[in-house]
Amino acid sequence: PQSKLPDVGTTIFTVIGQLSAEHNALNLSQGAPNFSCQPALIESVTKAMREGHNQYAPMSGVAALRHALSAKAEALYGCKYDADSEVTVVASASEGLYSAISALVHAGDEVIYFEPSFDSYAPIVRLQGAKPVAIGLSMDDFSIDWDQVASAINSRTRMIIINSPHNPTGAIFTDFDIERLTALTKDTGIVILSDEVYEHVVFDGERHESMACHPQLAERSVIVSSFGKTYHVTGWRVGYCLAPAELMSEIRKVHQFMMFSADTPMQVAFAEALADPQSYLGLADFYQQKRDLLAEALSESRFELLPSRGSFFMLARFSHFSPLTDDEFVLSLIRDHQIATIPLSAFYSNNKPTGLIRLSFAKDNDTLYEGARRLCRV
Amino acid sequence: PQSKLPDVGTTIFTVIGQLSAEHNALNLSQGAPNFSCQPALIESVTKAMREGHNQYAPMSGVAALRHALSAKAEALYGCKYDADSEVTVVASASEGLYSAISALVHAGDEVIYFEPSFDSYAPIVRLQGAKPVAIGLSMDDFSIDWDQVASAINSRTRMIIINSPHNPTGAIFTDFDIERLTALTKDTGIVILSDEVYEHVVFDGERHESMACHPQLAERSVIVSSFGKTYHVTGWRVGYCLAPAELMSEIRKVHQFMMFSADTPMQVAFAEALADPQSYLGLADFYQQKRDLLAEALSESRFELLPSRGSFFMLARFSHFSPLTDDEFVLSLIRDHQIATIPLSAFYSNNKPTGLIRLSFAKDNDTLYEGARRLCRV
Ligand SMILES: CSCCC(=O)C(=O)O
Ligand SMILES: CSCCC(=O)C(=O)O
Repeated sequence: PQSKLPDVGTTIFTVIGQLSAEHNALNLSQGAPNFSCQPALIESVTKAMREGHNQYAPMSGVAALRHALSAKAEALYGCKYDADSEVTVVASASEGLYSAISALVHAGDEVIYFEPSFDSYAPIVRLQGAKPVAIGLSMDDFSIDWDQVASAINSRTRMIIINSPHNPTGAIFTDFDIERLTALTKDTGIVILSDEVYEHVVFDGERHESMACHPQLAERSVIVSSFGKTYHVTGWRVGYCLAPAELMSEIRKVHQFMMFSADTPMQVAFAEALADPQSYLGLADFYQQKRDLLAEALSESRFELLPSRGSFFMLARFSHFSPLTDDEFVLSLIRDHQIATIPLSAFYSNNKPTGLIRLSFAKDNDTLYEGARRLCRV
Repeated sequence: PQSKLPDVGTTIFTVIGQLSAEHNALNLSQGAPNFSCQPALIESVTKAMREGHNQYAPMSGVAALRHALSAKAEALYGCKYDADSEVTVVASASEGLYSAISALVHAGDEVIYFEPSFDSYAPIVRLQGAKPVAIGLSMDDFSIDWDQVASAINSRTRMIIINSPHNPTGAIFTDFDIERLTALTKDTGIVILSDEVYEHVVFDGERHESMACHPQLAERSVIVSSFGKTYHVTGWRVGYCLAPAELMSEIRKVHQFMMFSADTPMQVAFAEALADPQSYLGLADFYQQKRDLLAEALSESRFELLPSRGSFFMLARFSHFSPLTDDEFVLSLIRDHQIATIPLSAFYSNNKPTGLIRLSFAKDNDTLYEGARRLCRV
């Protein structure tokens, strides 16, 4: 039989990662830090393992972690999530997104999402027999054209997937976005799936517009986030979902069969880490310095840098000096300059050339300097 | 909108686990050890974390682990799986089953499975818009009636899910099963999904009939197994799939969006553990002693014990002395005797009463003795 995902190949992150390794390139592609987490976090996991926290966690997550997440959402965003019925620990934000879409989107439904976008949304929707409806972000500032969203909404629209801070563009939601999204979804059955994995990485003193900040949105939202991006351990697969109990009970039905439960000792360690808000509140400054360092080091390059207001990423324009497609340009950077980035076209379902590449600044400073040096030679 | 899984509630393992905790009962329900893993395994994870193995693993798994799994399958079962294209590390056997079914089963397909069965198979099939076709195992010895399988196969049959050693009955595949399965699937497009998480827990000197032992079956099989059951760490979520490259490439398409990758430091640790075959070859004796200890300690009880030839489980009959349904009986054991077990009826889609309960002997010896003492009072 034919493939259920005929158009899907290997993810761009794997493809570029392999090419990068083959050409011994410096890697500014994936949003994975190349520096260490806090040693105390490793010691917490070790302690949890030695104390015997090695068997199945409860399906919904270790209780201490669910309570810590509930307390954090209330303190930061003002929303009360019941730790027993409205918080679920999942085995990565990826699994959270997959569980939520699988549980809530039926065959024949439509799901609106915005392009460029993280590459998993559309295939997961398609695997439900549902239709992903892509709406392009403005090519100027990657803002959302809400009138276009209004025209795309119909009786089959079951879900809108949003992501702020935004991977790959670094855009963030504004008050105006919140206002329009609220008005458009009011009195509908539309669920908002909000990918907030970069919730603690918002720059220049702006605030993260979590769906949890807005009661009218929170009541119809599933928020997905993760610990990997926040604690510099993308390889420890623990994330979480926040949602009203009626939505959460459906998500748990799927999660319990998809994963049963997430890693136990790492859940115990993250519960301890959350006890100190400085463990995440310092993250915005930490990454803002990296963003600024990279931008400064690239100021003499031929690239035009687009502003990044959050996330681990910034976009760089090359179209004014090279006629190549995004893919060709990225390949030439890896081959000729030993520097790996991601073509922005990879975040579009039709792979449309944009003249832009994505740079990850989730790297130690030496790597950022050396990366910039190589990019300045282009 | 209505639920996509209207008949699914909370898994039986969660329900019984909660009841057990409420009544302070001794827990012989879930197949999760209450004893420790080897301290060396914990030290391996700690070392991996300290050495910086904390970011995303490759989507298909850490290379050393894939090579170790390939070598193990060849040494034990005589089948060569290419480490690059035919071995994938997943984040638990649950995720492996979910990925395989999602990738290979289309809407409208039929999937044959055997009841009693692990509770995730049918809901995962249903979530694909496909039809789970349950075939009851013999109530005498839980063997498969292959003539019934032959009649159930039709042009829509896409997959047969098997599980040996069998959870919940402890039955194992025989030469005859292999012969019939081979004949029935020859020259068809049917995929065999083989849940082999108890591969190292086969008793009385019998051998595990892995699909990897039989070339005609291996070529159409997806084998799913896990490290949690083998290394006494069910809360460390790492499992694996073995399959021919054509099937595997479809499974990876789903896995990469469902989980992206499994836990990195734990993968590194399991790669080290596999280097010593004694780490898994001793497991059958270890659990056989526990099975025999529990059976011996129950010999004076009113329960009739059914033979267990593999897995962590044995069945015990109560119907000759109690008229209760399985659910009622299990509830009374928890309430009146502070001992938790699983009703066999929970492993049937229609919850049919069987007069049997499932006992897990994946417990330290003191717990087994005390559990038997409580059961002897019934
Ligand atoms: C599984 S890739 C996760 C996201 C990320 O790191 C990226 O976009 O580079
Ligand atoms: C996620 S439950 C896994 C299987 C098991 O442990 C059981 O059947 O008890």
